Amino acid sequence: MNKNKKTGQKLYLKAKEIIPGGTMVLSKRPEMFMPDHWPSYFSKTKGCYVWDLDNNKYIDATIMAIGTNTLGYNNKEIDDEVIKNIRKGNISTLNCPEEVKLAEKLIQINPWADMVRFARTGGEANAIAVRIARTASGKDNIAVCGYHGWHDWYLSVNHNKTGDDLASHLLPGLKPLGVPKNLKNTVYPFSYNNFEELEELVKNKNIGVIKMEVVRNFEPKNNFLKKCRDLATKNNIVLVFDECTSGFRETYGGIHKKYKVNPDLIMFGKTLGNGYAITAIVGKKEIMNFAQKTFISSTFWSERIGPTAALKTLEIMEREKSWEIITSKGVKIRNGWRHIADQYKIPINIFGIPALSTFTFDHKDSLKFKTFLTQEFLSNGFLASNGFYTSTAHTDEIINRYLEIYDKILHKIKKCIDEEESIDKLLNGPVAHSGFNRLN
Amino acid sequence: MNKNKKTGQKLYLKAKEIIPGGTMVLSKRPEMFMPDHWPSYFSKTKGCYVWDLDNNKYIDATIMAIGTNTLGYNNKEIDDEVIKNIRKGNISTLNCPEEVKLAEKLIQINPWADMVRFARTGGEANAIAVRIARTASGKDNIAVCGYHGWHDWYLSVNHNKTGDDLASHLLPGLKPLGVPKNLKNTVYPFSYNNFEELEELVKNKNIGVIKMEVVRNFEPKNNFLKKCRDLATKNNIVLVFDECTSGFRETYGGIHKKYKVNPDLIMFGKTLGNGYAITAIVGKKEIMNFAQKTFISSTFWSERIGPTAALKTLEIMEREKSWEIITSKGVKIRNGWRHIADQYKIPINIFGIPALSTFTFDHKDSLKFKTFLTQEFLSNGFLASNGFYTSTAHTDEIINRYLEIYDKILHKIKKCIDEEESIDKLLNGPVAHSGFNRLN
Repeated sequence: MNKNKKTGQKLYLKAKEIIPGGTMVLSKRPEMFMPDHWPSYFSKTKGCYVWDLDNNKYIDATIMAIGTNTLGYNNKEIDDEVIKNIRKGNISTLNCPEEVKLAEKLIQINPWADMVRFARTGGEANAIAVRIARTASGKDNIAVCGYHGWHDWYLSVNHNKTGDDLASHLLPGLKPLGVPKNLKNTVYPFSYNNFEELEELVKNKNIGVIKMEVVRNFEPKNNFLKKCRDLATKNNIVLVFDECTSGFRETYGGIHKKYKVNPDLIMFGKTLGNGYAITAIVGKKEIMNFAQKTFISSTFWSERIGPTAALKTLEIMEREKSWEIITSKGVKIRNGWRHIADQYKIPINIFGIPALSTFTFDHKDSLKFKTFLTQEFLSNGFLASNGFYTSTAHTDEIINRYLEIYDKILHKIKKCIDEEESIDKLLNGPVAHSGFNRLN
Repeated sequence: MNKNKKTGQKLYLKAKEIIPGGTMVLSKRPEMFMPDHWPSYFSKTKGCYVWDLDNNKYIDATIMAIGTNTLGYNNKEIDDEVIKNIRKGNISTLNCPEEVKLAEKLIQINPWADMVRFARTGGEANAIAVRIARTASGKDNIAVCGYHGWHDWYLSVNHNKTGDDLASHLLPGLKPLGVPKNLKNTVYPFSYNNFEELEELVKNKNIGVIKMEVVRNFEPKNNFLKKCRDLATKNNIVLVFDECTSGFRETYGGIHKKYKVNPDLIMFGKTLGNGYAITAIVGKKEIMNFAQKTFISSTFWSERIGPTAALKTLEIMEREKSWEIITSKGVKIRNGWRHIADQYKIPINIFGIPALSTFTFDHKDSLKFKTFLTQEFLSNGFLASNGFYTSTAHTDEIINRYLEIYDKILHKIKKCIDEEESIDKLLNGPVAHSGFNRLN
């Protein structure tokens, strides 16, 4: 172990000089975990292990590349298949047959759907779905709930009345700079499980599209999803489920299957290629065919790695019933969090579906506690924070060890709380960022 | 050879049932080349060779995956490096160090620039550049010239006065369906080399951003680029050069180097990863840092294949001076086209930079002639149309053979013209599409 070399942190200092924001994705900023100490960069991975640039080995007990690798890092079957096709050729003037096979497979998984388009990132998939849905409905206005990427159509919400309407969907305090102000009052957010709010929007705002995550932090209540579906159908509104995050974590497909409510369009991403870039827009023919009436085209959507990885990923998921495995592991972790926190009488809240679990300390020093937890886990060889996204590579043994360490950390936090001592003394560096901050 | 099995065409018939538009990118639609006959799908590639699903081997004498593979298909050094990193791990909760190295490299290549962001597709790179530039300028309005992808900001041009203002920049007859009508009059096109038109826009339309291709079909005249630069500087306008297509084809970097005019932001794509998905936004610190004031974030922008491929691609390009090679090959092809066409007194027009050359028959049957040319080349084992995007894998021998066949085809076309016989009799299938068409 070379924990003092901190090669990753040094590289990150350079990165912040030449990459605005330091990383490509907000959730992977070292400041989101432990400023000045987070290893920041990886050299290699395997299963649920990650090695940093100084060859320190960690167990990934946190976001697993933001939930992309439910079958673990470096799944050999998938890598072998990808490498086989790279050797054959990744792209050409002709198209790759894998995209047709993957389209067939996704229709098979979604029997209510008939057609498919692919992109390479989640933001793109969302923007494509929005374009198709707006074209199909003939209306510009959208009712939206949850997180749907970085594009103009979504961020424009913050041009509406309060200027911070995305606070509970994306993050608070985000100014919609660089997003045309004319987009004001085209996209209207509604709160999850608040059907009346959605009904009001549909009644008053000429809504053509309802776009929502099926589940994020809470389960649907009072038949919420079914009511959304019926409202959309009754008003000729295109219902779009964004399952980029939730897909393939509770069922072989979208989490909507669990609730027996079908959308008109759905997007998958994240898990679909087990860490290779591929996202999909799947939908009913009468909606999807509107893609032909507008221009949606990009050179790199025709590369071969994405659909190759997805085909093999789906095959393994189906064979292993990976969604059952990762859900049961998630349940075990949540039970552990709850049990240990209760033991110490430390109030915590647990969010998300089991395979994408997050907790927060219900305490004024919650962010400091979170930072301390990361610090202590790091010194025990774990990448950890207040979220644990499970994969089939997380063995029971690893989870048990994780919970043992969690217990010890909460014990120390409990002492701080009881003795009214500040956690500051125990922190070896600055407190983690909670959201969107400009970096120096 | 199994030219009669047509496995690719059969698969494409299925694709059109389940993928709206059949392919992921308009330019790779079989109908754009030779409806009912184009091989449509590839099994493998090597250098400038492509094998279809029936193991027929073709020389790619056309768009080379839309200009992505200037170092040829399956460049072994690049594939080896990509595979090495796949074996190590493609993505994780930590970031990949290659993105920092690639950022450094791109700054070195663009000494006027200080910071870099990456995406995976050209449309994304354009949308990111627009977001950053609008944020920096504090204005929404853009003056635009050339092709810049499928996103709302760009297609909104067709909400302006004529409804078809993108006709000469993208393609004619494109309805901006699904693009919010409120975006009308935020983006204004100007014609290449028409400086007065741009000046008028800047004077009257509160322009914050000028976004343009540096060169597409014609060379700049009357100091056009320099004048655009001065106008932008004088009016505090952010000047953005889109070199997704032109980059690394005439210089080691953007084609703007040739004209000694620097933008504030630039995008690279296509050639950057030699067929692996990676695009970059490169710019001055005082502009790029505005990326931190807005939300630009996507999970798959953090995968490792893209920057790994780009680093090796740049190394090989620099070592081989690939831009000189592909330009001289392009010149040879253009000279051949011109010489042969002149010989037969068939009027043709040649467009584009040498490494991205296109010609059109100046004749009422031009589209039929083009289709016939593709048909005849196919039967000689060439993928060919009216464009030839060169790579270092196109040997002189191959180009000579290509031109010999071109000569024979033009001979037959000349006979049709002279004898006033319709080319229809010689065509074995429908005529190619010329642009945007709804497929059945």
